[in-house]
This record gives sequence, C-alpha cells and structure tokens, in this order.
Amino acid sequence: MAERGPGPAAKSTAASPARRRGRPSRTETAAAPATRDRILQAAREEFSERGYEKTSVRSIAKAAGVDSALVHHYFGTKEQVFEAAIEVAFAPALGAPDALTEGPPEGVGERLTRFALGVWENPTTRTPLLAIVRSAVNNETAAAVFRRLVATQMLRRIAGQLDLPDAELRAELAAAQLVGAMMLRYVIKVEPLASADVEQLVARLAPVVQGHLTSP
Amino acid sequence: MAERGPGPAAKSTAASPARRRGRPSRTETAAAPATRDRILQAAREEFSERGYEKTSVRSIAKAAGVDSALVHHYFGTKEQVFEAAIEVAFAPALGAPDALTEGPPEGVGERLTRFALGVWENPTTRTPLLAIVRSAVNNETAAAVFRRLVATQMLRRIAGQLDLPDAELRAELAAAQLVGAMMLRYVIKVEPLASADVEQLVARLAPVVQGHLTSP
Repeated sequence: MAERGPGPAAKSTAASPARRRGRPSRTETAAAPATRDRILQAAREEFSERGYEKTSVRSIAKAAGVDSALVHHYFGTKEQVFEAAIEVAFAPALGAPDALTEGPPEGVGERLTRFALGVWENPTTRTPLLAIVRSAVNNETAAAVFRRLVATQMLRRIAGQLDLPDAELRAELAAAQLVGAMMLRYVIKVEPLASADVEQLVARLAPVVQGHLTSP
Repeated sequence: MAERGPGPAAKSTAASPARRRGRPSRTETAAAPATRDRILQAAREEFSERGYEKTSVRSIAKAAGVDSALVHHYFGTKEQVFEAAIEVAFAPALGAPDALTEGPPEGVGERLTRFALGVWENPTTRTPLLAIVRSAVNNETAAAVFRRLVATQMLRRIAGQLDLPDAELRAELAAAQLVGAMMLRYVIKVEPLASADVEQLVARLAPVVQGHLTSP
C-alpha cells in the first residue's frame, strides 16, 4: 500500500511502541515521516466520513494499515490526532492573515473571500474542512479544538492586524459571512447558491468582508 | 406525565394502530392532539440531543411514553417525524418573510437580524434549531429536509418579495451572514462573538443583511 512503507524493523516497532523511546534505528527514521503522513491522511478521511464521535484511534489505525499503538505513539489521544489532522488541513488557512498584509488594505475582503472559496472548491482541502465542520458542530471536544485553532490562531491574528476598536468581533463577523456562505453552498447545498459562479460570489461577498474588517 | 394523556382506549390504539384507520372513537379524538404534541416534543429533544442519525422512532416513542407504532401512525417514517418536528420549530421562522412587508423596506435588515437573534437567544426555540443544524450538517436526508423547508419555503418567499435580479441568491447570502454568525456564536461559541451584546450585533449585522437584500 505505502510506497515506502515500514520494513520488518518498523513493524516490530508498531507492535511494541515503547521501544521507540530509545534511539530510533536507521530504518525507523527513514520510515517515520511516510508512516506519520499515512496516519494523518487516514485520520482526515475517517474524521471526514464518520465525524469525530464515531471515529476511533483503532479505525484510523486500520485505515492506515498500522497498529493502534503506533497512532498513540505518534499523536497521543484521539483529540490530539484530530488536532494534528486539522492543523495540517488548516495550514493554508492559518496563513490567511498574511493575505491582509500582502497587498493593499482595500483588497483584503476580496483576498479573504477568494481564499475561502479556493479551499472549499478544491476537493483535497474540502474533505478535511467538512470533517472539521461536522465534528465541531456535533462534539464539544471537537468544537474546542476548532476554537483553539481557527478562532484563536487565525481570527486573532487577523484582528491583530486591524487597528480598529472591536477588531476581534469584526474579524469573527467577517468570518461568519464566509462560514455561512460555505455551509449553505458546500454542506447544505442550497440552490442557487450551490451552483453560483465563483466570480459572482466574490462580487457579492468581498465588499461585506471588507466592510466588517475596515469600515469605520 | 402528560396532563391530558391518553386513556385506556388510546393505549390499546397504541398497541394496534391499524384500528385508527376506522372512525376514531371520542376518547381518541380528545387524546390525539396532546399525544401528537408529546411525540413532537420528544422528537425535537431526541433529534437535538442525539442528532438525526442516532435518533430512532423507537427512542422518540420511548421518550414520549408511547408505542413506536403510534409514532409511525401519526407521522410515518423517521424522516417524516423529523420534518414535522422541524416544521413546528420553524413555524415562527417561516413567518419571517412577513417581516419584509410589515414595516419600511429600509428596516428589513434589522428586522430579520433581530428575528434570527431572537429565536437563537430563546432556549425554547434554540434547542430545535440546534437539532436541525447538527442533523443537516451530518446527514444528507436531514440536509434535504432543511433545504426543502428553509431554503425553499423561507428564502424563496423572501426572494419573491424582492424586485431585484438574483433575488434568490441575495436572500441566501443574507441568510448566510446570519447562519454563520449564529453558528459561531451559539454552536461553536467563539469569543468575543459568543458573549457580545445583542444590540452591538444588530448594529453590525443588520446593514449587511439589508445590503444583500436591497442594494442595487
């Protein structure tokens, strides 16, 4: 299955992960990144398809073709696997605040709107986002992870770049317009929004996001 | 439990619902509304707490203190119980389009924003709304019910009252701003939005909703 999957040495490690506390063998260090990525990929798919509650470390391990102990070894608890899976999925989103400084301030609404539509239009990034939304809506643990990563890291960084009163609330209401539009378009699939042209949506959403962030 | 619960006659009906196809006895007609309401109330609570997928007709019947057959008799399938439970919860929301005509058109954004905040601030109406959101995000059947009721009935009626191109898309994007804000405030509970003053939110959201609906 895996191109550079773990060899026999790594396999014995999977069965007895405590050994990994010692100095890793050369085989292990070579195999580790590929195995770790495979577990993360499996985690994203499992969380996305089943949601947070129904996903278990065991089901992730099974999907990744490894022992559960190896999942625990790399990531810890289910919550920690979830956070790691989200963090990778959100890596581009966490870079979104940079969009505020990369260009004129009057274009920030359009840049953020295009960014949000971009990650949702792309099936590779849409899958983990769906997982996050589904899980956060249904489970308090997942909601807390969402708050920590998205609200604190992403929105507070955007707010930090605004020199306005109520900057955090402004960033959240701008995000709310995009979150609501993405929910109705990609999750609930309400028409005509679900089939609307991306440019038409940018034209209508960008001024709203801009207004929330920069209007006096 | 129920103040005017079913008497012995109604109980035997619960055990053999086929009988109800005949002319209802006087006891049945008297008991029916209270029983029906009790089932609906139980359905709303079950869907709200467990979500669509984990709720069963049997668990609703148990919570309502009736036989499953009686739930099927009154409402049909689980999807139909869900639709009935939502429909009652959404009765005030389905009246929202009237807000457009009851007052000056330049106040429609504020009226809809206050309406949305009102139903979410009230725990009685928040519970079924949470059920709908959780279920619709996780389950295609529930999403279809949501689309049918909310999108088609509510948003199209609002759109029908706007004499503008792209009226349906406008109504959906206005709804998206409110849906996103309610999600982040009441479901994910992102701060400072979750604790923000209602009037502060009206001041920021109403112009956006107004703009989507009526700007040229």
